[in-house]
Amino acid sequence: MSLTDAQLAEIEANRAQRAETARPTVPALEAMLFAAIPVLDHGFVRVIDYMGDDAAIVQAARVSYGRGTRRVSEDAGLIRYLMRHRHSTPFEMCEIKYHVKLPIFVARQWIRHRTANVNEYSARYSILDREFYIPAPENLAAQSSVNRQGRGEVLGGERAMRVLDMLREDAMRSYDHYVEMLDEAEDGRPRDPENPGLARELARMNLTLNTYTQWYWKTDLHNLLGFLSLRADAHAQYEIRVYADAMAATVAAWVPAAYQAFQDYRLGAVTLSAQMLSVVKWMIAGEAPEQKASGLSKREWDELMAALGRTA
Amino acid sequence: MSLTDAQLAEIEANRAQRAETARPTVPALEAMLFAAIPVLDHGFVRVIDYMGDDAAIVQAARVSYGRGTRRVSEDAGLIRYLMRHRHSTPFEMCEIKYHVKLPIFVARQWIRHRTANVNEYSARYSILDREFYIPAPENLAAQSSVNRQGRGEVLGGERAMRVLDMLREDAMRSYDHYVEMLDEAEDGRPRDPENPGLARELARMNLTLNTYTQWYWKTDLHNLLGFLSLRADAHAQYEIRVYADAMAATVAAWVPAAYQAFQDYRLGAVTLSAQMLSVVKWMIAGEAPEQKASGLSKREWDELMAALGRTA
Amino acid sequence: MSLTDAQLAEIEANRAQRAETARPTVPALEAMLFAAIPVLDHGFVRVIDYMGDDAAIVQAARVSYGRGTRRVSEDAGLIRYLMRHRHSTPFEMCEIKYHVKLPIFVARQWIRHRTANVNEYSARYSILDREFYIPAPENLAAQSSVNRQGRGEVLGGERAMRVLDMLREDAMRSYDHYVEMLDEAEDGRPRDPENPGLARELARMNLTLNTYTQWYWKTDLHNLLGFLSLRADAHAQYEIRVYADAMAATVAAWVPAAYQAFQDYRLGAVTLSAQMLSVVKWMIAGEAPEQKASGLSKREWDELMAALGRTA
Amino acid sequence: MSLTDAQLAEIEANRAQRAETARPTVPALEAMLFAAIPVLDHGFVRVIDYMGDDAAIVQAARVSYGRGTRRVSEDAGLIRYLMRHRHSTPFEMCEIKYHVKLPIFVARQWIRHRTANVNEYSARYSILDREFYIPAPENLAAQSSVNRQGRGEVLGGERAMRVLDMLREDAMRSYDHYVEMLDEAEDGRPRDPENPGLARELARMNLTLNTYTQWYWKTDLHNLLGFLSLRADAHAQYEIRVYADAMAATVAAWVPAAYQAFQDYRLGAVTLSAQMLSVVKWMIAGEAPEQKASGLSKREWDELMAALGRTA
Repeated sequence: MSLTDAQLAEIEANRAQRAETARPTVPALEAMLFAAIPVLDHGFVRVIDYMGDDAAIVQAARVSYGRGTRRVSEDAGLIRYLMRHRHSTPFEMCEIKYHVKLPIFVARQWIRHRTANVNEYSARYSILDREFYIPAPENLAAQSSVNRQGRGEVLGGERAMRVLDMLREDAMRSYDHYVEMLDEAEDGRPRDPENPGLARELARMNLTLNTYTQWYWKTDLHNLLGFLSLRADAHAQYEIRVYADAMAATVAAWVPAAYQAFQDYRLGAVTLSAQMLSVVKWMIAGEAPEQKASGLSKREWDELMAALGRTA
Repeated sequence: MSLTDAQLAEIEANRAQRAETARPTVPALEAMLFAAIPVLDHGFVRVIDYMGDDAAIVQAARVSYGRGTRRVSEDAGLIRYLMRHRHSTPFEMCEIKYHVKLPIFVARQWIRHRTANVNEYSARYSILDREFYIPAPENLAAQSSVNRQGRGEVLGGERAMRVLDMLREDAMRSYDHYVEMLDEAEDGRPRDPENPGLARELARMNLTLNTYTQWYWKTDLHNLLGFLSLRADAHAQYEIRVYADAMAATVAAWVPAAYQAFQDYRLGAVTLSAQMLSVVKWMIAGEAPEQKASGLSKREWDELMAALGRTA
Repeated sequence: MSLTDAQLAEIEANRAQRAETARPTVPALEAMLFAAIPVLDHGFVRVIDYMGDDAAIVQAARVSYGRGTRRVSEDAGLIRYLMRHRHSTPFEMCEIKYHVKLPIFVARQWIRHRTANVNEYSARYSILDREFYIPAPENLAAQSSVNRQGRGEVLGGERAMRVLDMLREDAMRSYDHYVEMLDEAEDGRPRDPENPGLARELARMNLTLNTYTQWYWKTDLHNLLGFLSLRADAHAQYEIRVYADAMAATVAAWVPAAYQAFQDYRLGAVTLSAQMLSVVKWMIAGEAPEQKASGLSKREWDELMAALGRTA
Repeated sequence: MSLTDAQLAEIEANRAQRAETARPTVPALEAMLFAAIPVLDHGFVRVIDYMGDDAAIVQAARVSYGRGTRRVSEDAGLIRYLMRHRHSTPFEMCEIKYHVKLPIFVARQWIRHRTANVNEYSARYSILDREFYIPAPENLAAQSSVNRQGRGEVLGGERAMRVLDMLREDAMRSYDHYVEMLDEAEDGRPRDPENPGLARELARMNLTLNTYTQWYWKTDLHNLLGFLSLRADAHAQYEIRVYADAMAATVAAWVPAAYQAFQDYRLGAVTLSAQMLSVVKWMIAGEAPEQKASGLSKREWDELMAALGRTA
């Protein structure tokens, strides 16, 4: 994470400001407000604002006039019920806004979640910082031999060195050429006003995909949980999963009852197809079905056995 | 508006609660929080929560680390620029949540605005109140003779009386029969447990469309302004326009710079087609074009003349 | 279903029209095009248009240049994989458009599915038909005693008669008064031009919620399957479930591989929470856990036992 | 555009396939189906499928049983009315699907239009082609001195050469290193199975932003016109505008009446703020207002004068 002193000072100034409000307020999340949670080598996630709390979910589900009329345990029970039965609208009543700094190739995955509001730093208008994601050696994984979109072993020493050199040098050279094409003075004006450099909207195309960008990203709790269920998952690419993990911690602080229900009924849950359910029933009846006779493909069979903790 | 004493007490209790927050806070909107703004005979609009302020629009547009670094006048200038050029994403960074009580036929228009989050009071699960919208006599308009979906003159005395009688009696009889079909005791259980009444999800179909329902409705500022531009417009049906007007007052309190820009560049603006623009140019050149030669249809010509304040 | 002879003739004329196209075409769905599938007493569903087929799902998932390059069995395998792992975007590449006639209280549930395009018959502009949904006696269910939003036994004879009388009479009286308020001649003009009747946008509020409306409704396959998974479910209200069932038949004709995968992995599937999964593992290990010791609530326990076919 | 012979053959095979359909069919668009329209140096746009036509807009607006019951001129009149009054839902009843090959930095702008369905070629799963966008010399514009996100003059000869060299060399070197990191044989398997190369999901980060990607992109006509109004505009970046222009030609072939209305009421239209309208009224009245007294900012004044064809 590479915040300038001026940026850190601005953040601290915001954290110190206090006002009175009659809105629902969550002290555990207030304690996190504005602070940059480091992610990857130069990235971060900051909570900028939020609306609602666990009680707001209940209040909307009941369309009630006040809040806090029932006991916390009753609220948690209703929230668990809503999560279990995949009710979505009450969770949409909470909203959160993040400021995120992230590599462009991660941003390209992230933006596929459409039900969110985004303002990205514009490289048509401004100049991107000289910051690139270079993986730590332990994250430099080889292509998986079993999963076409997964990772296998960590690359060995010399090879890893060569990869890191290429990533670093290509990113830096491309960035230096970007700056050369722009040909701007410190203040962003052309060095030679008679003869300005290449338009920013063009020069940016020379940057590599590990260059960092940043954005404000705002979404509701329902869609955020959908994001987390896909991106905090073991199948997600490591470089986006670390962002999801950082955000999950903010959600746990913000709406603890909803987050617990999410862990039990979504993150830790398993969906069994009609055929898988039949196999489970046989097994409970004491039989020992085999894949061939099960009606499941080899792949589904393996998935089921893994879910039941029975890997061969 | 018909809030019970218990409801009013709950609202007052919420208004009295105060907590500290580091989030952007708008005193003028805090003063309105939770209070029911009366609309129509039994309806209301209440602001339940909000996120962001004028500065948050600017902050997102600049993807900046802090807030409040520039002068208010600069912020207002940028907001006006964003509104004029129809930038949408910075305005999406503010969010507001309302509790609304409204007749079902109004709810059916309202719900067509899809980019919003809604939790409606469920008549499958609960019993609706005995409240119907009965227009005030001065709003009892005849069908327009010029506009197939508009209103004309106010109905005359005797006729108006007859209409009001029908509306009132049909709504009341339908509601009484709804209650009879349900056959429930005070506590919502069947009067005769051996022999319960009709399912709530069925009985509700007997209600008339002027019965009141209620919902929590949450949207971002960009979509709210879209809603207001359509529903606070003179062509909107009166019964939804009064809701839009009540909400417009809350927006003016919440984000005054954005609301002023909205008034100038959206509500008070006029869009001229390519052909209309040609006519305007001729007029400025001192010519006096006529409809026939203008290339405009009669209807477009009338619209243009009205916009220019030149109604025949 | 109550189509006029003129409407039936128009439908037949459309069905008879044939043109050549290079687009993907599904003969089984072509055979259903435009024809009204009756639903409830006066409602229907008609397929008006469609885009794509099973192969289009595969083509988009592979971002390929042609279609039909692989064998059908391979395509079905990929579709099953996509469905099992909840990929959504390839299914969004197919689109379908329906014309639906349905009671207003059903329309109010239906419209909650926001990711769809809708054009509803406007009662501000036009006059609704004199058609109401009156349940068949076998669908006149009592309120459930165990589920606050469900149905119990069918109402007994006399009571059912009384309910049907109320529904019928209130709907008819309200409609007759609606017509009286409008005071229009056959051609839709005021009977007395000097003294026109109540504006249509107002008069409609006197109608009951079982009045039929109609709309064009268009959505993509992913969102349609989401609609079906909620509305063709046993917990859905009967009156919307019959529409979902009628549409499910059109989907089975349109994209048979996707529909089969949907049945196996969505409709017939069960999601087990982390705690439920533990219980299942114990049972497979030959133990006989009890609810109290299971960590599951009574309700969740019952749901799990029902899924495993072990209802007490 | 760089299609392989196999790809061209597949496209031709698709174009030659013909089936009968009762769906609305547009011969002028059928003639364009599947064919790649070249855009930039290696990109293209191909229409893959479509749903609806001008008559379908009218049919949905009227919620009618058949199509083609009125004359074409009446339909066009209604379409113009709908466009002028910004009705959106009837235009949503038409849908179109494109296959697009485009540079990543263009894809990043494009994806901001959220109401669309997208399947992008996955660089986690597959390997991108060795194709980069290198601007033609006449498109190598300098940064604008008046507009921070615009272009100025074309770069001079030597400087242009230097820029083109950097763009070309950096893209090629980054791509070659990408291939080296992957270390795959022709068939996509590791060259050395004991020692596979870097995971694809990681190696891709070394690519530059002018590398080409491709996707299937599907949207409805209303949202497509919104896309075109922003991206076919003179203020849009040239590299996305050429895609918008290519698509505009397909829309003109597909729904000629809607496209004509779009040109008149959207593309060629001008929106005047409340203050601008006042100035226009003064001018029509024969007065000659000046900027200072007009209430308009210098910028707005210039915009108004430009719209009126009165640039100083």
